[in-house]
Amino acid sequence: MGKTKNDLILRAARGESVERTPVWVMRQAGRVLAPYREVRQKAGSFIQLVKNPELAAEVTIQPVDILGVDAAILFSDILVIPEAMGLPYTMDEGRGPWFEHTIRSANDMNRLTNGSVVEHLQYVTDAVRLIRRELDGRVPLIGFAGAPWTIFCYMVEGRGSKTFSLSRAMLQRDPKLAHALLSRIADATIAYLKAQVEAGAQMLQLFDSWAGILNHDVYQMFIMPYMQKICDAMRDTVPMTVFAKGAFFALQDLGALSCHTIGLDWHTSADWARSQVGPNKTLQGNLDPAVLYGSTDQIKLATRKMLQEFGPQRHIANLGHGVYPDIEADHLKCFIDTVKEYQYQ
Amino acid sequence: MGKTKNDLILRAARGESVERTPVWVMRQAGRVLAPYREVRQKAGSFIQLVKNPELAAEVTIQPVDILGVDAAILFSDILVIPEAMGLPYTMDEGRGPWFEHTIRSANDMNRLTNGSVVEHLQYVTDAVRLIRRELDGRVPLIGFAGAPWTIFCYMVEGRGSKTFSLSRAMLQRDPKLAHALLSRIADATIAYLKAQVEAGAQMLQLFDSWAGILNHDVYQMFIMPYMQKICDAMRDTVPMTVFAKGAFFALQDLGALSCHTIGLDWHTSADWARSQVGPNKTLQGNLDPAVLYGSTDQIKLATRKMLQEFGPQRHIANLGHGVYPDIEADHLKCFIDTVKEYQYQ
Repeated sequence: MGKTKNDLILRAARGESVERTPVWVMRQAGRVLAPYREVRQKAGSFIQLVKNPELAAEVTIQPVDILGVDAAILFSDILVIPEAMGLPYTMDEGRGPWFEHTIRSANDMNRLTNGSVVEHLQYVTDAVRLIRRELDGRVPLIGFAGAPWTIFCYMVEGRGSKTFSLSRAMLQRDPKLAHALLSRIADATIAYLKAQVEAGAQMLQLFDSWAGILNHDVYQMFIMPYMQKICDAMRDTVPMTVFAKGAFFALQDLGALSCHTIGLDWHTSADWARSQVGPNKTLQGNLDPAVLYGSTDQIKLATRKMLQEFGPQRHIANLGHGVYPDIEADHLKCFIDTVKEYQYQ
Repeated sequence: MGKTKNDLILRAARGESVERTPVWVMRQAGRVLAPYREVRQKAGSFIQLVKNPELAAEVTIQPVDILGVDAAILFSDILVIPEAMGLPYTMDEGRGPWFEHTIRSANDMNRLTNGSVVEHLQYVTDAVRLIRRELDGRVPLIGFAGAPWTIFCYMVEGRGSKTFSLSRAMLQRDPKLAHALLSRIADATIAYLKAQVEAGAQMLQLFDSWAGILNHDVYQMFIMPYMQKICDAMRDTVPMTVFAKGAFFALQDLGALSCHTIGLDWHTSADWARSQVGPNKTLQGNLDPAVLYGSTDQIKLATRKMLQEFGPQRHIANLGHGVYPDIEADHLKCFIDTVKEYQYQ
């Protein structure tokens, strides 16, 4: 594979100097692009699209062509890991994922397979190889996985939740089982991320979507050891971004991880985040996704304010969460163009 | 009405010295107490219970008798305000509230009544008078209302939401309409809270349940003016608590309101909250409600740690959110007893 022509995001993640701030968008592949919806239709279902390397590659590359982002992110789903571990799921449009079987007792752990998750997930590594070939070095490819706590929540609840009460109750009532499951998830995640890197992923992101429901003590005691294990295992591979949504209370801990970049949601100011994580991490984020409901003038104003707050180095521009499905593609492109054209004062 | 025998919570709110930390629990009236479920059954539905002063009074007082809390909180619903303003709702057990009509355009504003919300809500003021009589000064009675942003969300969306996209989009796309609606809500809320105080409420709490979805700029620009208007209007009446869940980013602004107490969720540490709101506010909270899933030993440990962090003055002990419906009443009582027995070191 040839040299990556636009390596802004890799340099920003490693803390090297960049000529301008790189930009990509969580959920850029899918949702708001019309050509995505065509491919999604062709695939039949979301899960079939995830499992089809050719089509997954196609929608991964679409935002590079259409939006001009500085990175592609693998089109996939964090829930392929629980599935590969033995808990298949269905995706009900509008109601979200649903698992027939869940882990709520030590006995349920027998449901988990002892087989290789990497073998099960060959459709992902096939997609990664295909994407790298088709990208042909235009921009780097980001691989990803769900963080242990978020995956744990789905495996315990069997679906999304407002309070994740079953999962949080298990941490209190059966810490041994909770640690056993979190540990299994972390090991599977490490194997999976290593396979993504071997196949060609040039950056990684760990999504802890439900971090914000926990208290700080619990996050430190139950979750951080597995975040650290994953970051340590991946340290000598490619730059890693940790995005723990809502976990402002744990930013100092996250800043001590052996990762390169900390993703921020739109509640956390650049100044405060920097004071928490220190000078040696790149920050990623964090425009409020709802700003994209506004006019292009409003989007430009808010984007420039954000860029000014983060400054020209050690920043990867992004939204503070995945783009909402009802955002116009033009408004998303306005955000991206504004970043690419910005001159710092 | 006679003198209040246990006025710990009133003194704590006003920053006066207390012999021990007062304690109450959000959602203490309802949900986890068996006698509540009997009355709820008798009433027919949640909304019928809310509208029945005798039964509402009965469930308001139950936790004083059963749990030994230091305050009663009116059994009611924040959604009586939109209903009184002209948008009736139904409550579907498990799926939450649902409004047939919503406010999404300037035209929809015509749906709102010009009548007096206070007249419409006489069942609430009747309940307040009845509760005060039946409490007979044992503990103070807390009245409450939803904060303008949270009520706005329900009036715009017509139901709960994960992202409140319609509401946040309206702030961007039609700020004039948004301000008009927020202003109407604030005025109705002031009239409602004043009527509660006249009927006998001895403290007030404003619940901004969905504050945590907004960014700081938007919260300052759109929400704070109405929070301030309400707090200013109530300043010379009874102590006011503002609880903006998830709005850690706005704590400094909230600390500048003319209210007495700031409610905290379980993500915000006592130290940090104090640094944000300054010395002249009482703090309320903030045990993680999921701690109550643990053993009584775990509950005692976590409660004592919380008390120690807040210190013996200017603190009202509470959970960081409403008690979850599947918590055992004994575990809730353990939390309350632990606060009442605690000796500060």
